[in-house]
Amino acid sequence: MDRRKISELSQAELLALSAELEEQYLEFKKRGVKLDMSRGRPSATQLDLSMGAAGGVTNFVGVKGADYRNYGLLDGIPEMKQFFADLLELEAEDIIVGGNASLNLMYDAMVRLILRGTGGEKPWKDVKEVKFLCPSPGYDRHFAICEHLGIRMIVVPMKEDGPDMDMVEKLAAEDETVKGIWCVPLYSNPQGICYSDETVDRLASMKCAARDFRIFWDNAYGIHHIFGETKLKNIMESCRKAGNPDRVYYFFSTSKITFPGAGVAMVAASENNRKEILRTMGIQTIGYDKMNQMRTLNFLKNAAHTREHMKRLGDSLKEKFEIVLATLDKNLAGTGAATWHSPRGGYFVALDTLPGCAKETIRLAAEAGVKLTPAGSTYPYHMDPDDSNIRIAPSFPPCDELREAMYLFCLCVKLAAVRKFLTK
Amino acid sequence: MDRRKISELSQAELLALSAELEEQYLEFKKRGVKLDMSRGRPSATQLDLSMGAAGGVTNFVGVKGADYRNYGLLDGIPEMKQFFADLLELEAEDIIVGGNASLNLMYDAMVRLILRGTGGEKPWKDVKEVKFLCPSPGYDRHFAICEHLGIRMIVVPMKEDGPDMDMVEKLAAEDETVKGIWCVPLYSNPQGICYSDETVDRLASMKCAARDFRIFWDNAYGIHHIFGETKLKNIMESCRKAGNPDRVYYFFSTSKITFPGAGVAMVAASENNRKEILRTMGIQTIGYDKMNQMRTLNFLKNAAHTREHMKRLGDSLKEKFEIVLATLDKNLAGTGAATWHSPRGGYFVALDTLPGCAKETIRLAAEAGVKLTPAGSTYPYHMDPDDSNIRIAPSFPPCDELREAMYLFCLCVKLAAVRKFLTK
Repeated sequence: MDRRKISELSQAELLALSAELEEQYLEFKKRGVKLDMSRGRPSATQLDLSMGAAGGVTNFVGVKGADYRNYGLLDGIPEMKQFFADLLELEAEDIIVGGNASLNLMYDAMVRLILRGTGGEKPWKDVKEVKFLCPSPGYDRHFAICEHLGIRMIVVPMKEDGPDMDMVEKLAAEDETVKGIWCVPLYSNPQGICYSDETVDRLASMKCAARDFRIFWDNAYGIHHIFGETKLKNIMESCRKAGNPDRVYYFFSTSKITFPGAGVAMVAASENNRKEILRTMGIQTIGYDKMNQMRTLNFLKNAAHTREHMKRLGDSLKEKFEIVLATLDKNLAGTGAATWHSPRGGYFVALDTLPGCAKETIRLAAEAGVKLTPAGSTYPYHMDPDDSNIRIAPSFPPCDELREAMYLFCLCVKLAAVRKFLTK
Repeated sequence: MDRRKISELSQAELLALSAELEEQYLEFKKRGVKLDMSRGRPSATQLDLSMGAAGGVTNFVGVKGADYRNYGLLDGIPEMKQFFADLLELEAEDIIVGGNASLNLMYDAMVRLILRGTGGEKPWKDVKEVKFLCPSPGYDRHFAICEHLGIRMIVVPMKEDGPDMDMVEKLAAEDETVKGIWCVPLYSNPQGICYSDETVDRLASMKCAARDFRIFWDNAYGIHHIFGETKLKNIMESCRKAGNPDRVYYFFSTSKITFPGAGVAMVAASENNRKEILRTMGIQTIGYDKMNQMRTLNFLKNAAHTREHMKRLGDSLKEKFEIVLATLDKNLAGTGAATWHSPRGGYFVALDTLPGCAKETIRLAAEAGVKLTPAGSTYPYHMDPDDSNIRIAPSFPPCDELREAMYLFCLCVKLAAVRKFLTK
């Protein structure tokens, strides 16, 4: 394997490399492999570790005597609030337990802001424009909510310690139509970047032109460590200390702790925010699934026990992340065809191809039987300005399939890069 | 007990009756009873009949090989769709399975109509006014959705076979701001009225000025028979035949079949409607709780088995309904102090006091320790024009407590009536 930068090869060398890669590619294609690495789905093996969360519930009478089979307790069972509080170092009273998906709580929050507003400010449907800051690459489903609801998205680049805070502060301070920001603060989707304490504090204390500026803090991977533990500063506390207690909605769920779709979600918020949330929630439903809250708790038990469980899940992901990173290193290091982050937790590895090569890489991989997240997905409006970011989701395929898929993937990255220079 | 109409008593007779009732009332009050009949909650005994629905799930691989522990299947598992289809004589392909609450699906539908509209018509947020027809007395949580979202409610009186259809047809045909109607077509909440075939057909085929007129068909008690079975005409079919396939959203859930809050909800709708629903649902969530769908199915098995289960639930409610109706008959028949319906299923008995006596009756009952649904709750904006309708929810208390509560209730109805005439 040639370790020189592809960009520095002569046309003759490029032609030779291209021929070699094309041959390897065709060979792979002939094998008729079918692999899906498009979404961050846990593998069956990983799900097997949570079978206790599919158990029966016989302890349906709660600490305060309520029958959890019946109606009641709109904001969740006290046991679950305490559990989340212990796990995330939050206050139990700040927590509202929701249904099976924190995404749904986020969507509902956005709809509520649009229809009813917050803090006495105008509902967002009644102002001329609403913009959201979108640190990118980011989570496609966050961006989809904004797009669906007509909220204009502003791309903010990601740095090593979170979004470009100079830019965030400037936009928030100067433009009153900038009403909020999406954040996945720990092991960000897709890069695995962790927000520094300084980033957290700057978000909590920055000057905002919009009095109803809101941080959508999606701590989806808050305890999803793989290579050791990374601490995240408590933004609820930072906001309180900065005198902006109402600025943040803190979302979390057990979807990637037990079962995707059959877990328990929560939102933590200030008293003012909780009042608004519960006012609408009480219209929307009589209550969420308390039996599933109890079922999930029966399995997870407490914060310490959950951390042990996450250690097992982390270990089962570790080998996969190592395969991804080792394959990238072996095949792409030194070629200049791509750069990537080495995350210490979460669910993804993000890679940047040469500008203009992401779509082609993904097309090539799909043609050879490996489905990846569509190019552009990690940017608002599916528009990656450089056409370079690709999200790799290693959790689902078994290790041997992942090895194959990553081998092909690297081949496609290089092939796309070589073609780019050849056609010049 | 005097069986003459209270309105026909002389002042002296009224004074004597009043003294007698006051004495009985004070006696009851002294006993310090505490009973809650405010909501339609099943009793613990009834919930015990569904403990199979709290069981563990080991059969998480579906008919088509999907792992129900994982993401996927936004519109629900095929087994659950087929189950609902068999149970309600619907088409499986028309069904979208939701979360634990059909109320949430209704709320989401309304929000979707407001934010995005339907059938290419303007979103309801962009038209000057939106009105909904509200057959009343009706379900307070339906009315709360309209009130919360700023939709103006028009009261339509209930008749023996459903809403006053002459009025419904006239309003729908003449006023294009009338965009829909709430219906609980079988054993209506709170009167237990069943819509006749003619009512169903008229709703399905009537001329509507608004092209985006929508029927919110909340068949909450669709299989909740108590005294024999009442058939409900299939409105999906009627709408199709009338050339208005998109007019209706059909809601149902297992909340009052297994556990309130831990059941499975559904909406059935035409292909056009389903496309719109799924478009937004796919932004709102990655999917609902498929494990709970499987868990619920493991217990309910199939339509026939579910009907047997409902027979048991019906039998456990029968005695309670008989206590309510017998106590009303014994204490109020002939007094002219109240009229009431004798429902053949569902969850409630509705009673009308003399005009202006509902609030006072409920106040008196509360003061003596029996909590009832607040007066006015069965009308839009909590405004019962006659202050006469009271919803009795007999499902929760054990039979002996129910007897006591109903005895007191009748006392309060009479006391309020007597006071009304005395103060004249």
